[in-house]
Amino acid sequence: MKWSSSYLYTLKEVPADAEIPSHQLMVRGGYIKKLAQGIYTYGPLALRAIRKFEAIVRDELNKRNCVELLMPMVQPKELWEETNRWSEMGKGLLKFKNRTDQEYCLGATHEEVITDYVRKDIKSYRDLPVNLYQVQTKYRDEIRPRFGLMRGREFIMKDAYSFDPDEEAAKKSYQLMREAYTDIFTRVGADFRTVKADSGNIGGNLSEEFHILAETGEDGLLVGEGFAANVEVCPAIEANPADNSSVKEEKLEKFETKGLKTIDDLAKATKQPASSLVKSLFFEASKKESDQLVKPICVLLKGSDEMNPIKLKNFLGMANPPRMLTDEEVKQVTGASPGSCGPVGLEIPIFMDTAVDNMKNYTVGANVDDYHLKNVNHGRDFKVAKLMDLRVAREGDKNPEGEGTLQGYRGIEVGHIFYLGNKYSKAMKATYLDQGGKAKPIEMGCYGIGISRVVQAVIEQSHDKDGIIWPKSIAPYEVHICLLDPKDQEIVGLANSLYEELKVEGIDCLLDDRDERPGVKFKDADLLGMPLRLVLGRRGMDEGALELVERATKKVHKLSADKIKSKILELLK
Amino acid sequence: MKWSSSYLYTLKEVPADAEIPSHQLMVRGGYIKKLAQGIYTYGPLALRAIRKFEAIVRDELNKRNCVELLMPMVQPKELWEETNRWSEMGKGLLKFKNRTDQEYCLGATHEEVITDYVRKDIKSYRDLPVNLYQVQTKYRDEIRPRFGLMRGREFIMKDAYSFDPDEEAAKKSYQLMREAYTDIFTRVGADFRTVKADSGNIGGNLSEEFHILAETGEDGLLVGEGFAANVEVCPAIEANPADNSSVKEEKLEKFETKGLKTIDDLAKATKQPASSLVKSLFFEASKKESDQLVKPICVLLKGSDEMNPIKLKNFLGMANPPRMLTDEEVKQVTGASPGSCGPVGLEIPIFMDTAVDNMKNYTVGANVDDYHLKNVNHGRDFKVAKLMDLRVAREGDKNPEGEGTLQGYRGIEVGHIFYLGNKYSKAMKATYLDQGGKAKPIEMGCYGIGISRVVQAVIEQSHDKDGIIWPKSIAPYEVHICLLDPKDQEIVGLANSLYEELKVEGIDCLLDDRDERPGVKFKDADLLGMPLRLVLGRRGMDEGALELVERATKKVHKLSADKIKSKILELLK
Repeated sequence: MKWSSSYLYTLKEVPADAEIPSHQLMVRGGYIKKLAQGIYTYGPLALRAIRKFEAIVRDELNKRNCVELLMPMVQPKELWEETNRWSEMGKGLLKFKNRTDQEYCLGATHEEVITDYVRKDIKSYRDLPVNLYQVQTKYRDEIRPRFGLMRGREFIMKDAYSFDPDEEAAKKSYQLMREAYTDIFTRVGADFRTVKADSGNIGGNLSEEFHILAETGEDGLLVGEGFAANVEVCPAIEANPADNSSVKEEKLEKFETKGLKTIDDLAKATKQPASSLVKSLFFEASKKESDQLVKPICVLLKGSDEMNPIKLKNFLGMANPPRMLTDEEVKQVTGASPGSCGPVGLEIPIFMDTAVDNMKNYTVGANVDDYHLKNVNHGRDFKVAKLMDLRVAREGDKNPEGEGTLQGYRGIEVGHIFYLGNKYSKAMKATYLDQGGKAKPIEMGCYGIGISRVVQAVIEQSHDKDGIIWPKSIAPYEVHICLLDPKDQEIVGLANSLYEELKVEGIDCLLDDRDERPGVKFKDADLLGMPLRLVLGRRGMDEGALELVERATKKVHKLSADKIKSKILELLK
Repeated sequence: MKWSSSYLYTLKEVPADAEIPSHQLMVRGGYIKKLAQGIYTYGPLALRAIRKFEAIVRDELNKRNCVELLMPMVQPKELWEETNRWSEMGKGLLKFKNRTDQEYCLGATHEEVITDYVRKDIKSYRDLPVNLYQVQTKYRDEIRPRFGLMRGREFIMKDAYSFDPDEEAAKKSYQLMREAYTDIFTRVGADFRTVKADSGNIGGNLSEEFHILAETGEDGLLVGEGFAANVEVCPAIEANPADNSSVKEEKLEKFETKGLKTIDDLAKATKQPASSLVKSLFFEASKKESDQLVKPICVLLKGSDEMNPIKLKNFLGMANPPRMLTDEEVKQVTGASPGSCGPVGLEIPIFMDTAVDNMKNYTVGANVDDYHLKNVNHGRDFKVAKLMDLRVAREGDKNPEGEGTLQGYRGIEVGHIFYLGNKYSKAMKATYLDQGGKAKPIEMGCYGIGISRVVQAVIEQSHDKDGIIWPKSIAPYEVHICLLDPKDQEIVGLANSLYEELKVEGIDCLLDDRDERPGVKFKDADLLGMPLRLVLGRRGMDEGALELVERATKKVHKLSADKIKSKILELLK
């Protein structure tokens, strides 16, 4: 593509609302332009990167007998009601009425649609297995869209759905997709991790995420030998727990703590570390968001630990994390404001985090405003309904499945695979007749890749202060030719012939034929980030030393005109 | 693709709600499956045909320096208000509020979004011309979605937008796109016509449609030597108008016509042909739908002619066709019910169709219930505000731009090109600085192709009683191999090697490797409609007479195994 006949505009200024480098670079490079909150137009270069990534995805899926189709973005309410997700999905699912007052939503995901699709066709075990996928534009009405394509409202996704006769076969399909995803992200050339993950409101009990590593990633990952998990689901095991078994239980004491509202206040005032205090949190444990407060529970954590709502959600079998009680509700349940609450004397179930188990003589709220209790001991002073892992795991915690401790990373979730079981097929009566003629629900899996997000995540991982550094796998163009003397016929002739010859080899060039200063062209080439920059100018020509620059390393190769093509082919191999 | 590892289900029954052959065949062949009114999932085969057609479209556009990008489906209200189309588009534009109560619509077209996009970048005449396009899913909330993909609510469209410095350049861009469209539909291999068209509420004053001809087409086309138009905008000129110049004007007479409500009633009762009666219709001539009834007008037509609302709309410069008055309103204006109204004595503007001009002594309503007037003559009995072409043209009318008369066709609109002028750029302040440094609105054009509709239109034009007859240009697969003896290793080996060898040649085969009877396989092959069917069975093998059948003609070629590949290559050339 010649710059003069394309549509490329770069910006010098960093856009005010772009917080992370990849977002800034995509906007500055004209890759994306914002239309509304979380909604972007993909410019010509971004679209090329997207298409190249899509081609890799299709190739790896087709290889594994996945079949591509294309489902609608507008979906009828009735289908979502069959699985109860019309209400469960909450406000992220954008709902509307059409001109005849029928209710629809914009597809945020397609489990319902695809299950409806296959239940109309699949009759017998002979029709299984099958894996159907699409590359399609989705819409999720995110509360806080941010970081450009990272958390947009409208985005491009590849979603695949597998259908199998039984759990064993379904798990094989899951492993096949895991393998496909590993190959896909390996081909992209990104540094990524595959981690255990929460199933959210998609369902099922086995799921893993694929993360491209980047400091600004929204997710915390914990990785050890033979183990990797999203911090959301990572078991928390202290590496070196204190042994308090021989510590004597002291006498319970109530003391005044006027004005001490937080664990930090209390730690400071009592001159104890937060880790020797115990905090009490209160949650609604009902199963549906719309239910009344039926079952408040109390959660106890070490003062220095953080509660992990996903763990509690999964234990309670809820679709979404449980709601924390309001101050008013806490007062009703305990008699005191949140800063002064504790487990002693409560008549509701108490869930205790494992890290509290070996603590002795700790301090908790007294359930009387401005008072706390010290020398509190579970067993003696209150009863624990359930001892369980409820805290957020941390770097340095023990590796739950191998040797050593866990190391922390930040990641950008770019893929997610789920074994769903028969959640959808049961709800929607998608059954097949097995070899004995018995109707059984189909076993399902679902598998997503955030196509547009991957493109930005790659940039977030691969850039420098001057701009993007594309891996050749999805670079919009492999070579960026800076034509320095666009009026010099010999130079123009060389540029054009190289452009054509490389095209024949399957290499696409972006030819900057603008009437601009070299400095402008170099800056734009660095910003746009194609793997190789070729500088064609009179001086280099005369000296037999034309410059071919590797974007990633800035390594310069000086070559005569006749060597350029072979060098480019060699570097891109 | 092997049938056994694809997802293909055909139906024997004609679906109840599919009225036209292409819709029936697409559903029966599993090409599409309905999700909701006007909303379909594209199955694997349909998607392949769509992608092949898209590739043709991209190729022809890229050749002409059009640049592909991708715009969002969800669009903010504010942009549409800049052009006043938020209200003008009516209920076809699906509007909704997001979670924070901001108003959005689903993109039915993208003039506003693209104009906003370029006004942020284009500064100078040096940035022009440019033509940007996308292939994208659109949604229009059609009142009566029908005929499958023909008039769906959700559909795939290619929309392109040209930006030029002045009208001359813009019209050149328009002609370039006209040429591209001609090449695109020619490459598809469809019988199509390019006709003058109405601009609807897109704007501008020059537009043409591309129609694939089919008996069931929703549009009437009139074609003569050097002329073709959609009947909506075709000038109506009587081929052999009667010469009444010497006829004497008779005396006006009022007569009773109790119970005669329609032109047909009146013609029967008075024993006159409808063509000697004149009918009066009443419309609101205000410019905005929301306005009060400010200016009723009366339209006079020959009793046998049909009013063309598009012609009136265009004359009045309205965005949508004018509204007919209700019976109540007609009574207010004329003093009589619609069946007894006429022009004599009215004080509102009277628009008379040209076909009435040479009539004399005709009959009209008397503006008194149950009475008509005969021997009415314009000029003498009432004043004509405007004599103009207001009727629907017909086959047999005079060719308005060449010799002879017009011939009628039915067509399916698959493409539409518009010269827009500066309607959008002016409203949205999309300007550039010309060579003299003066700010001028950019001249625009817009160009659409109904991608998903084309695929069905091709089937509507090309099928027989047994199924689809794909042109090779967009056939999902070029060759359908019916493997008759899937347990015969020699046959299977031949099938597989042919499959692979043809793939190398760029020819994709659908290999029916199911354990089914030959009859079932042949029926499915006819239904699905690939250009060539190859029958591989033991008997043909032994006799050295394997059957290669051309779908369109059912011509059978009997060949030995070693001749098949070259014959296929020859037939598909």
